[in-house]
Amino acid sequence: MTTVLPPALLSARESVEPALRTAVRRLDPGTRRVGEYHFGWSDADGSPADAGGKALRPALVLVATECAVGDRTGGAGEAATAAATAVELVHNFSLLHDDVMDGDASRRHRPTAWTVFGRSEALLAGDALLSLSPDVLLESGAPNASAGVRSLSATTRVLIAGQSADLSFERRQDVGLDECLRMAHDKTAALLGCACSIGPLILGARREAVRGLHAYGTELGLAFQLIDDLLGLWGDPEVTGKPVLSDLRARKKTVPVVHALTSGTREGDRLRELYDQPEELTEEQLAEAAEMVRRAGSEDWTRQECRRRLAAAEEQLASEALGSTEPMGELAEFIVRRKL
Amino acid sequence: MTTVLPPALLSARESVEPALRTAVRRLDPGTRRVGEYHFGWSDADGSPADAGGKALRPALVLVATECAVGDRTGGAGEAATAAATAVELVHNFSLLHDDVMDGDASRRHRPTAWTVFGRSEALLAGDALLSLSPDVLLESGAPNASAGVRSLSATTRVLIAGQSADLSFERRQDVGLDECLRMAHDKTAALLGCACSIGPLILGARREAVRGLHAYGTELGLAFQLIDDLLGLWGDPEVTGKPVLSDLRARKKTVPVVHALTSGTREGDRLRELYDQPEELTEEQLAEAAEMVRRAGSEDWTRQECRRRLAAAEEQLASEALGSTEPMGELAEFIVRRKL
Repeated sequence: MTTVLPPALLSARESVEPALRTAVRRLDPGTRRVGEYHFGWSDADGSPADAGGKALRPALVLVATECAVGDRTGGAGEAATAAATAVELVHNFSLLHDDVMDGDASRRHRPTAWTVFGRSEALLAGDALLSLSPDVLLESGAPNASAGVRSLSATTRVLIAGQSADLSFERRQDVGLDECLRMAHDKTAALLGCACSIGPLILGARREAVRGLHAYGTELGLAFQLIDDLLGLWGDPEVTGKPVLSDLRARKKTVPVVHALTSGTREGDRLRELYDQPEELTEEQLAEAAEMVRRAGSEDWTRQECRRRLAAAEEQLASEALGSTEPMGELAEFIVRRKL
Repeated sequence: MTTVLPPALLSARESVEPALRTAVRRLDPGTRRVGEYHFGWSDADGSPADAGGKALRPALVLVATECAVGDRTGGAGEAATAAATAVELVHNFSLLHDDVMDGDASRRHRPTAWTVFGRSEALLAGDALLSLSPDVLLESGAPNASAGVRSLSATTRVLIAGQSADLSFERRQDVGLDECLRMAHDKTAALLGCACSIGPLILGARREAVRGLHAYGTELGLAFQLIDDLLGLWGDPEVTGKPVLSDLRARKKTVPVVHALTSGTREGDRLRELYDQPEELTEEQLAEAAEMVRRAGSEDWTRQECRRRLAAAEEQLASEALGSTEPMGELAEFIVRRKL
């Protein structure tokens, strides 16, 4: 499947990747090699590659900054690029560490860094990316760079809380829908909220604009995570890079699954039986589990919740006296709507 | 064995621990519990405990700041406490992560955090401590806090490079003495250099004083690591909290060991035979290996190298127009001299 990427994503990769590469070049040779592999810039043997991610978070930083500040030249452009780089560093720190903790063997259709270089080396590369993010912001020369550092490190702790909750859910039988949505907020939505507000924040934009964009990104982020949860159940393996029904196979407690488990329906009870079974689920049982989620009404509910979050996001944009919000709308469309 | 602690260490624990506790209280409950256990403030079940470390790095921050700035009241005192807290957060981030990577089961006479809470939880707690360190500095109100953040995060990457080198040494047979000393610098000395200079740095002290104190801390740190290497071979298990000859048991490539291995002596060759042996070393072989290090002249050389580093450190202090350096001397004495 080929998809037309919105211009904002293409231009984000173009303008942020050089800054990211410069940042990663500051690492010691061993750690740098792991980082460059993880970002898709090199193969396991160090030869150049081109397998980068889609730069969604950097694109959000750039378009949100332009919306709020109305400028992408000079100091504003530099600050926005630095903010986008710092957010992408934190995102990739969390991917490197989460892949080790979750034991995930592939990402972006490639073996994960820890499977190639070892667990310790992947952890150290994640640590190093995290340590770079304040430097990139403070060196940007943005008037309010310190506030950006604090916003991003507070968000990092929210990501950590989300991963911690996610790990604890694996061991628990009684996960409720509210705490599951909170986990989705912490693991995904919080960083999108930060991405949409950090550029304006460090450039000293009005407090209401920063707050509105943060709320916009958070709602969009939750919609994004819900779509991701649906793709984890019914996504095309060619597109997701994961085997079909992989989230059920790993008995993940994603939002649609927890909605079904707590639905009080017969289908929810049957799903719980399957999740409680000590043996691995057979292909037939996996298909049955997915069908139970659907018949419990949880696919529909998740899709509706996703639409509600999108509507709430758009309301935030409309309520703020921002510049052109068209590029943000295009991005949101790409991220979420086309998959609804 | 009871030791009289120098006043600087006692007062550092007293003034920095409250700030550290406040910082750790900002973590989500799950991660906070791991952090509080690791710092020795609570037991595995969450009940209060008092098993904290010796606060060496915070003490260095406080005394070095007072030397350079000549003031421990008001803004200067607050900035020094914040800097000491930030350095201790980074140090403990590295301990939490290193213990997972090295598989070390005990620290400060207690089971390590990962053995109690799990590897992922210990990693997340380390991540969270690292994320707190820039916040603590930026919230201190020190005039040059950003420079402190950049110094500390650059140092974090040096720690990472050191741990990465240490891990690679385990797999290599050809480790040279120079790269081994570089690793000791990266893993230990760099953070002591940062600790001795970060307070004056964020308070805007003269550049020469900051530079001199950084060099002082780096030399002192190397002496400290060399002492640690000697204790890893011949230290009293009651004091070190590690089994006797533990570094040889794990076939660590510490400075005295690498000095012996590369000494070109018969004793060095015999040590290499023992290190290359596929089976575990027997108690008799461990004693023999230690004896080979001694007879290769490597214990003496390490002790001399340690004295050279201490002399170089003291030279740095003498060459700077600093205030009273007496408390620093007392600390250095405690850290290093009494064990020489």
